[in-house]
Amino acid sequence: MNRIPFNEVRETLAAVLVKFGFSQDRAQTCARLFAEVTRDGVYTHGINRFPRLVATIRNGCVDPAGEPVTTARCGALERWDGRKGPGNLNALAAMDRAIALARELGLGCVTMGNTNHWMRGGTYGWQAAEAGMIGICWTNTMPNLPPWGGVEPVLGNNPLVIAVPRSRGHVVLDMAMSQYSYGALESYRKRGEMLPVDGGFDTEGNLTRDPAAIERSWRPLPVGYWKGSGLSVVLDMVAATMAMGRATHQIAPDPLREAGVSQIFFALNPAGLGPEAQAEQIADGVVASLDNCRPAEPNRKVRYPGEQTLRIREENLRLGLPVEPAVWDEIMGM
Amino acid sequence: MNRIPFNEVRETLAAVLVKFGFSQDRAQTCARLFAEVTRDGVYTHGINRFPRLVATIRNGCVDPAGEPVTTARCGALERWDGRKGPGNLNALAAMDRAIALARELGLGCVTMGNTNHWMRGGTYGWQAAEAGMIGICWTNTMPNLPPWGGVEPVLGNNPLVIAVPRSRGHVVLDMAMSQYSYGALESYRKRGEMLPVDGGFDTEGNLTRDPAAIERSWRPLPVGYWKGSGLSVVLDMVAATMAMGRATHQIAPDPLREAGVSQIFFALNPAGLGPEAQAEQIADGVVASLDNCRPAEPNRKVRYPGEQTLRIREENLRLGLPVEPAVWDEIMGM
Repeated sequence: MNRIPFNEVRETLAAVLVKFGFSQDRAQTCARLFAEVTRDGVYTHGINRFPRLVATIRNGCVDPAGEPVTTARCGALERWDGRKGPGNLNALAAMDRAIALARELGLGCVTMGNTNHWMRGGTYGWQAAEAGMIGICWTNTMPNLPPWGGVEPVLGNNPLVIAVPRSRGHVVLDMAMSQYSYGALESYRKRGEMLPVDGGFDTEGNLTRDPAAIERSWRPLPVGYWKGSGLSVVLDMVAATMAMGRATHQIAPDPLREAGVSQIFFALNPAGLGPEAQAEQIADGVVASLDNCRPAEPNRKVRYPGEQTLRIREENLRLGLPVEPAVWDEIMGM
Repeated sequence: MNRIPFNEVRETLAAVLVKFGFSQDRAQTCARLFAEVTRDGVYTHGINRFPRLVATIRNGCVDPAGEPVTTARCGALERWDGRKGPGNLNALAAMDRAIALARELGLGCVTMGNTNHWMRGGTYGWQAAEAGMIGICWTNTMPNLPPWGGVEPVLGNNPLVIAVPRSRGHVVLDMAMSQYSYGALESYRKRGEMLPVDGGFDTEGNLTRDPAAIERSWRPLPVGYWKGSGLSVVLDMVAATMAMGRATHQIAPDPLREAGVSQIFFALNPAGLGPEAQAEQIADGVVASLDNCRPAEPNRKVRYPGEQTLRIREENLRLGLPVEPAVWDEIMGM
């Protein structure tokens, strides 16, 4: 693993994006978002995912010049057409607009169809929290998860993000509806480890902790079995119906052809109802209740969602972003 | 199990509520909501829960005359004080207001502190869907769930409801953050059955399917292990901070003293962005994708959340509501 300074990563990625038709501004923003995801420790969705973005530009799924447009508005609610633009730029713009609506109307919602993979969903939660807003957003995905009681992957893992702003560290949940991603299953298998909890079914239909058995059956588990299966269904329905976009079953089941997804972004403005400081005390109180909870293993305190991020971020900014040499070589050759 | 006609149940419960200080109107509505929960097959939260409501009126946790008031408004967002009123009447009023805001502004949100147990959360999802709205709401609860990595129950099971309207049957998810409720664990234990999937830890800290072992350890599992734990945390934070109400750690850990909870209600108006019919086709398409999914067990098709409700509702209206004789005797003696 190499360590490369944040700015060098960003400039390198931006230069590639310009070659593929991004404007200078949009290349800088898109590259910054990728670098920030790696900076925050979500290595699967940062620099390591960049070659996949380039592949989907090359095959026409992502249009570098595609910018979203508003197609309908009603009060605090807007529908956008993502026009096949880069998913992270589109999502950033959508949450930005939800925040602006929330400043004016207490809350705002932007729904967007015809957009693309947003990379790390947490990005847009952090964005809302940095603006002092509660952010809630989710996306549908290609089919990659069998529903409870079914053996074919007709559900998406549809990540759900909920962020709460706090001066002492935002709380940011970023949660896919599968218990383990295929990437996680692969990591466990390569390390020769079993999963700590059941992660799916084997080909005989038995629950198993063996990652290779789940890779063979294509039957990973939804979080909470029937519960996460139901949650995945309704998240897909809400995003697709409000956006008038594609539902999961209409999205190509291929990471390189996964295009035209549907997303929804909410911002809620605690300051709109005031007093903000008191709202933050309530959030701090919840964190304190976790801090004070007796841990299952001594000296391993209970953590809140996103608690590790600021420490990882500081370390990666200080030491440089961790980059896999093979991925970096590939990017340098683009 | 006796079967009693819906109207007789409603009138009987309403008469009891009037004795306890409800106005005629409010008694009728509150009684109707209880009867409808049993009618829809959620037996734990309907008539069987009525004696607990009466107990919390007797001990002063619930004020029969408490009606919610708006304490702050900003655009499409309102904060209410539930004034210790009956939880189901308060929640009904809050979702009703969110629906009215959504008619005007595309979406609406009402947050409410100082309220009480809302009984079946799905009620307010059905309410929104009947009005043609997407409804999203959740409540916090008393502490009854240890966070991931902790052994003390500092989280609530914080039910989350998401409803999507459809002429062919609304889709209504009503999902608590624990994999099994204590009521469900008790049922399995009494039937002498093991849980179908891991439901918690035993006193040695091992995952187990033995319901009695989980009742002894007080360590039921959050849905999806660390994931549902994080989701419970943020649902609590959002509801409590927006409502300026109590967070889970501030609520008495006693079913008879669980009072002053915090809730949040969203309505989204698909018709605000039009065309509604097309939105419904998208939802129908998702249902069809589940209908067409190859089932894990032959002849047991995959179901969407709430799919069974209309069938159960019809049956219970036709045959009468199932009522446990002991519970009914208790109610008749009130």
